[in-house]
Amino acid sequence: MVKRNLLILILLLPCSLFAGSTQMNSSSAASRDDNFSSTRGGLEIVSSDGEFSATLGGRLLLDAAYYDEDKNSLGNGTELRSARLEMEGRIYADIIYELSVDFADGDADMKDAWLAYDAYHPWRFTLGHFKEPFSLEELTSRKHLTFMERALPNALVPGRNMGLGLHWYGEQISVAAGLFGDDYNDDSDDEGDEGWGGSTRLTYAPLATDRSVVHFGVSASHRKLDDEEEYRVDSRPESHLTDIHYLDTGKIKQSRTLTLVGLESAWVYGEASLQGEWIASNLERDDAADIEFSGWYIQASWFPTGESRHYKSQQARFGRVNPLSEQGALELALRYSTLDLNDQDVEGGSSDQLAFAVNWYYKPQLRFMMNYIVVNNDRYADADGDVENEDEPNILQLRAQLDF
Amino acid sequence: MVKRNLLILILLLPCSLFAGSTQMNSSSAASRDDNFSSTRGGLEIVSSDGEFSATLGGRLLLDAAYYDEDKNSLGNGTELRSARLEMEGRIYADIIYELSVDFADGDADMKDAWLAYDAYHPWRFTLGHFKEPFSLEELTSRKHLTFMERALPNALVPGRNMGLGLHWYGEQISVAAGLFGDDYNDDSDDEGDEGWGGSTRLTYAPLATDRSVVHFGVSASHRKLDDEEEYRVDSRPESHLTDIHYLDTGKIKQSRTLTLVGLESAWVYGEASLQGEWIASNLERDDAADIEFSGWYIQASWFPTGESRHYKSQQARFGRVNPLSEQGALELALRYSTLDLNDQDVEGGSSDQLAFAVNWYYKPQLRFMMNYIVVNNDRYADADGDVENEDEPNILQLRAQLDF
Amino acid sequence: MVKRNLLILILLLPCSLFAGSTQMNSSSAASRDDNFSSTRGGLEIVSSDGEFSATLGGRLLLDAAYYDEDKNSLGNGTELRSARLEMEGRIYADIIYELSVDFADGDADMKDAWLAYDAYHPWRFTLGHFKEPFSLEELTSRKHLTFMERALPNALVPGRNMGLGLHWYGEQISVAAGLFGDDYNDDSDDEGDEGWGGSTRLTYAPLATDRSVVHFGVSASHRKLDDEEEYRVDSRPESHLTDIHYLDTGKIKQSRTLTLVGLESAWVYGEASLQGEWIASNLERDDAADIEFSGWYIQASWFPTGESRHYKSQQARFGRVNPLSEQGALELALRYSTLDLNDQDVEGGSSDQLAFAVNWYYKPQLRFMMNYIVVNNDRYADADGDVENEDEPNILQLRAQLDF
Repeated sequence: MVKRNLLILILLLPCSLFAGSTQMNSSSAASRDDNFSSTRGGLEIVSSDGEFSATLGGRLLLDAAYYDEDKNSLGNGTELRSARLEMEGRIYADIIYELSVDFADGDADMKDAWLAYDAYHPWRFTLGHFKEPFSLEELTSRKHLTFMERALPNALVPGRNMGLGLHWYGEQISVAAGLFGDDYNDDSDDEGDEGWGGSTRLTYAPLATDRSVVHFGVSASHRKLDDEEEYRVDSRPESHLTDIHYLDTGKIKQSRTLTLVGLESAWVYGEASLQGEWIASNLERDDAADIEFSGWYIQASWFPTGESRHYKSQQARFGRVNPLSEQGALELALRYSTLDLNDQDVEGGSSDQLAFAVNWYYKPQLRFMMNYIVVNNDRYADADGDVENEDEPNILQLRAQLDF
Repeated sequence: MVKRNLLILILLLPCSLFAGSTQMNSSSAASRDDNFSSTRGGLEIVSSDGEFSATLGGRLLLDAAYYDEDKNSLGNGTELRSARLEMEGRIYADIIYELSVDFADGDADMKDAWLAYDAYHPWRFTLGHFKEPFSLEELTSRKHLTFMERALPNALVPGRNMGLGLHWYGEQISVAAGLFGDDYNDDSDDEGDEGWGGSTRLTYAPLATDRSVVHFGVSASHRKLDDEEEYRVDSRPESHLTDIHYLDTGKIKQSRTLTLVGLESAWVYGEASLQGEWIASNLERDDAADIEFSGWYIQASWFPTGESRHYKSQQARFGRVNPLSEQGALELALRYSTLDLNDQDVEGGSSDQLAFAVNWYYKPQLRFMMNYIVVNNDRYADADGDVENEDEPNILQLRAQLDF
Repeated sequence: MVKRNLLILILLLPCSLFAGSTQMNSSSAASRDDNFSSTRGGLEIVSSDGEFSATLGGRLLLDAAYYDEDKNSLGNGTELRSARLEMEGRIYADIIYELSVDFADGDADMKDAWLAYDAYHPWRFTLGHFKEPFSLEELTSRKHLTFMERALPNALVPGRNMGLGLHWYGEQISVAAGLFGDDYNDDSDDEGDEGWGGSTRLTYAPLATDRSVVHFGVSASHRKLDDEEEYRVDSRPESHLTDIHYLDTGKIKQSRTLTLVGLESAWVYGEASLQGEWIASNLERDDAADIEFSGWYIQASWFPTGESRHYKSQQARFGRVNPLSEQGALELALRYSTLDLNDQDVEGGSSDQLAFAVNWYYKPQLRFMMNYIVVNNDRYADADGDVENEDEPNILQLRAQLDF
């Protein structure tokens, strides 16, 4: 379905757009700050000479889950989903940086750790550990997701890796591309060379006002796997508290290269919004047929209290919702998602899940979330043999989220 | 000794007090800030719009210990007892939060991680990871303890867990209650449901001036253990540097519910103070007799330099000592504590320890501590069989403590 | 070569210098701030009463390495070499402190964690976790090293431990000495007593202007090993991304005491500089001959763009390079280093490496580094038997470094 020379295309894409870009960027300079610290408002420290600044931030996500269990015990309880400290700022006029660490699992997990050259606006060159440009939902911060967890197809998405990236945006178009090594938390590559790959994302938003957005995007990624040549995808149900990953391909041996494509679209009409993505992967193996996985989701949300989802056009992703009244904003949402990890000799399982959400944004920085999820697993969804299959639990989960 | 329906009582207690509370709270509004950031003085950052604030804090506890050994080697040496970064603040008028991480063991351990709704003073509703309201010594910050380590009976106390809590205080009375899941650092509940329980603490301070305090308190806690149904209590001697936990019940199987009660009292007369607690636990098992453990301590302290222990009446616990002179404050203290973990078929050991302390508070934020401890173990105190029993070492330990 | 009573000498050294010190210190008071926060400029927070301050800092080191392999696979790839958050400041007039944590390995590693009494300038008394005073290259921050990694002989150097230290400096002389327990991240001493030892460093800089420096130094260290009585030295090639430690003595049993001596010198003539060190160790064992290891390095650097290496005379080490022009500073450097871990019955291997560096300091806080290293291993350099010996790879490695 997708070919190996896509990598060359990925790298050429931003360059080919460069020619036509210079006449577009004047209008976007006004909203420059939005690109960086917009809604933070923030706890900023500036050096006496004005050359440096740092803005401190944090996030605290407190979860509880109740599993209406079918065949397996998923483990009701509570969880600190995320506790993060962040420091981002500017060094002289042209360098920006971010350091963020998550302490949720009893250790320290560096998330964003990058510096960027930001002098030739709207171009930005980034170096470090950051998210590969792939998928609208992945690039939207967990703080601003409509549902508590990302949809099932997100299991295919590359996420954060060490690398370098280029980002450009115009009035309606944004392009991001990057070359990436492995994640630095990946210890599996001690013996041999790390893998590496490239990702790119192109978005087009013919309409992007405060309350009306039409957004389309396409992502592509190609990766040479590391010298261990093992590939594995697994996924929990759309709930993080349980440790059961129903979908699990196990280690697929002799895996050489992975190619991904993604299509995305989002629509905002005042209080209502629609969003959907389709993601497919192709895994090339030695002496065996290619393996193809795919998944998609579609979600609708509505604010009875009159707010709109906030679209950040420069990064082409969603941001913070600001409640209109003292009582806060109420959001209702529905999502259907599906992921199929069965292909050829691989029986990773397939699942589709229907999720219903009620979110109450009491303040821009404080919201409460409730998700109810109906899980529908196929007979291969047995966590690589660790649990009973054809398990179909329902999930009720709650979150309190503070971020600043 | 204590019954299971105590849990209902725990939850009703704060409600039953609500009726009589409203006429008391006017006088306490003046000292409101004491509740939150009092003696910090602090490194505060405020956003440009004044809506957020964060105060940065830290603590550094440097220990050394010399063990006058009897039968076992306890391991003389040095230790970073605590190295903590803290961020606490206010979001808009009514939300306060705290995030604190300890880095002492080479990893990152989230301590307080909570947010609280603080609009209806003197009521406060808290959500997150914080200490269950149980025991005066547990709730007093390690920074402000008279001795380097808490007394032996503290091994029975629940400590920090994920949950929600309600706190109220009047002129002489404070009430705190909460419902809690397990600690998020507890990995033992992966397979089954987490345990959960409730705790409450009621205090009465008929006298609480700057230099005279009479304080009484009662705590109760009831917990359904997690699906593994194992309960274990262990305790080092009152010294953290050694890894030997003389007292250790091992895993007590088929444990279902745990009930705790605690009584506490503290008296401050100018330079002198007395403090004591008694804590008892009752463990219900399947097909076996209940097991009861208990312990108590009493301590006296005296400031030859004229200072007083600082009682924070809103939280009903002790706080920071402020030296009167440039030379700092000197405190002498003596404590006797005992804990008995032998009952029925469980031979966890019993110990009593006599501790002598000299503390020099050079600055409010900097103190030096010396403890000398005489350990008296019974013949079951063998660290669940790992060390020789009837070991009776003496301990000399030192600490330098910086906190701000 | 070096004797055990060196320890007494180490402790007497600073005292013997005390007599002659008082008449020297007036001239150095002017540059006092240089001792602490000089080039930081920094993100400082001060309390409202002016009694406390904290300066926030951070560092981000992003590496990539390509190994031109010979016999073993070293693992090409990328790495987050360091991601550190730092907090340092002043409490009242006379106490300074520092807390720094590194998050690079997916956990949290406390680095500097100390407090110091700084009232009797130029004397300073320090307590906590900090670097033992030994070796110019060790004491120079990684942020300000000319090469990406320290030279091979650094494997012998003690590094950070828990302890107390005394530091004094005069117009041309500095003396530092300390007593240290073990590192708190060292878990190997659980069973028995920790080791402890003393280190001292004496430097003499007859010339120390902005662009001309002549520096000499001698360090000595003596340590009683912990109760496990095992000593091990190992060393990667001068590249951190690979996990192969070619040089590795394995655990040397029945090791009792370790004595180290080091000689160092550095010369700066405008744009050019020379620096070299020789370090030797002597390990005393029970019932076996002493073992002696040694190594040395020499390096030259040159700034074609006209800058000088910055010598901080109070701490007698190198600091931050400030580029003269908007285009930044360019530095070329060459280093030869060698370390021999073969002696008696120990075959730890011997290696010499030639490294060439190009550094571009775009801003004082941002630099890019490229190292090319030619590795020359002897036949014992087989990572204690884990890899093929006589391996002679070449290494190309890159770094982007942000620190503030």
